[in-house]
Amino acid sequence: MKLGVIGVGLIGGSFALGLKEFIPDLEVLGVDRNADNLTKAIELGVIDEISDLESVCNQADAIVLSIPVNAIKSVLPSLLDQVSENQLVVDFGSTKKAICDAVKNHPNRANFLAAHPIAGTEYSGPEAAFADLFKQKVMISCEEELTGKNQRTLFHELCAHFKMSMRQMTAEAHDLHLAFVSHLSHITSFALSNTVLEKKDTEDHIFDMAGSGFASTVRLAKSSPDMWAPIFEENKSHLLEGLMSYIEQLQSFKTSLENGDESALKAFMGKANQIKEIVDRLE
Amino acid sequence: MKLGVIGVGLIGGSFALGLKEFIPDLEVLGVDRNADNLTKAIELGVIDEISDLESVCNQADAIVLSIPVNAIKSVLPSLLDQVSENQLVVDFGSTKKAICDAVKNHPNRANFLAAHPIAGTEYSGPEAAFADLFKQKVMISCEEELTGKNQRTLFHELCAHFKMSMRQMTAEAHDLHLAFVSHLSHITSFALSNTVLEKKDTEDHIFDMAGSGFASTVRLAKSSPDMWAPIFEENKSHLLEGLMSYIEQLQSFKTSLENGDESALKAFMGKANQIKEIVDRLE
Repeated sequence: MKLGVIGVGLIGGSFALGLKEFIPDLEVLGVDRNADNLTKAIELGVIDEISDLESVCNQADAIVLSIPVNAIKSVLPSLLDQVSENQLVVDFGSTKKAICDAVKNHPNRANFLAAHPIAGTEYSGPEAAFADLFKQKVMISCEEELTGKNQRTLFHELCAHFKMSMRQMTAEAHDLHLAFVSHLSHITSFALSNTVLEKKDTEDHIFDMAGSGFASTVRLAKSSPDMWAPIFEENKSHLLEGLMSYIEQLQSFKTSLENGDESALKAFMGKANQIKEIVDRLE
Repeated sequence: MKLGVIGVGLIGGSFALGLKEFIPDLEVLGVDRNADNLTKAIELGVIDEISDLESVCNQADAIVLSIPVNAIKSVLPSLLDQVSENQLVVDFGSTKKAICDAVKNHPNRANFLAAHPIAGTEYSGPEAAFADLFKQKVMISCEEELTGKNQRTLFHELCAHFKMSMRQMTAEAHDLHLAFVSHLSHITSFALSNTVLEKKDTEDHIFDMAGSGFASTVRLAKSSPDMWAPIFEENKSHLLEGLMSYIEQLQSFKTSLENGDESALKAFMGKANQIKEIVDRLE
């Protein structure tokens, strides 16, 4: 079997590395606009061959798009122009609505499956990839009813190797939910990082006192701007709703603090404590 | 040697458990306003004897105050009224200025040492305590010049067992720094938790899509309101400064997002990426 990976970074690379453990004769063709990534991916055994979009379309049984969401949106239509009957093209972008809309009326829409693995780290590039990243994680797919039967079967077979939990939802619901439980977390981390970095300008030793709690809340601020700017832009409307709601929460806390209203502060935190059962399930 | 622990929770309990490994004949007397905590602490071997403030003052070589910061401030003066010449009273509160000010002119000020171990988890109570919590962590002390020589020596000996990095600073600098690299992280987590919990009211399955990134940013929202409300109130002025700066960062991000200003979004994230070296050191 041949797998084409467009974007040999953390996500595409981990998918390839993982599948190689389950499918001994798997041959992975890698495409990347960054030549360094391709060289590293070959060295690390993430891919077997450096390829290009046209060759991948001619050879691969399944093609995975693991590049920034705006790049997926622009590459996907021309990729679908070139596919043959049974080929599967799947994207792993973190937003789904704009991508689905971009190929809604494409004559080869049935070759495409819109997916999003809930798996990742704050690192990027082929050197960040590891075979177990997808193991037992959640895989979301959207609009599967528009995907062909053979393509759906192949996709679910590939995911079954990783024992993933499969969930289907509309692209709209996906983007709304992810805005709140993933994209917003990244913004809170980026903003906290900048707040403390600015304070460092006048307080040299401020980070000497940082501990594991701080590390936990700013960890995502290490994430790649090239990957995240397009996600934020494509999920703008839901994110603006989430951001406004988050700023309101902070302002409500600030008012209680200004007023020395201890019972309001405790009620705010007591309500937030309800996240315990969710977080304990995730850790 | 006898150690008195006022507040047998995560911090006081972990200090006692850790020292027991290094000082075989250590006897730990526990005081807590919560009888359940005392029973659990005895069962778990965290303390050896249930005691009270008066008995602890009569017997212990060192007394640790590991209770909410407002409780430290109110108990400490009367505790110092009762101590004898070589006894050490140390507090582990997360704010230092108000506590130091409360005993600034106390005749037994030399018996007191103001400290803050940069160690903790989001859990509380004696069942959360573990012997290694303090191991190789940072221990901050403030105004050590007001502490007696014997007390300082004993304190540093105790911390040396854990191979802690000792740092001294003014109470004012401590509170300012901690506002930015610890207390603010807790507020961002509490607020994010409430934002998503409110969205859950209309979107039942929102947490099905949450992953490790979300868990990381809301983990601290599990923290105890009883412990944190007094910290926020005692560090109010620095926290309001931090909160305002944080809200400004979020608003600046929001404006760039509204304007579709990709280069501003990338610059925001690129700056925040500088946190990498700090976080990598902490993890």
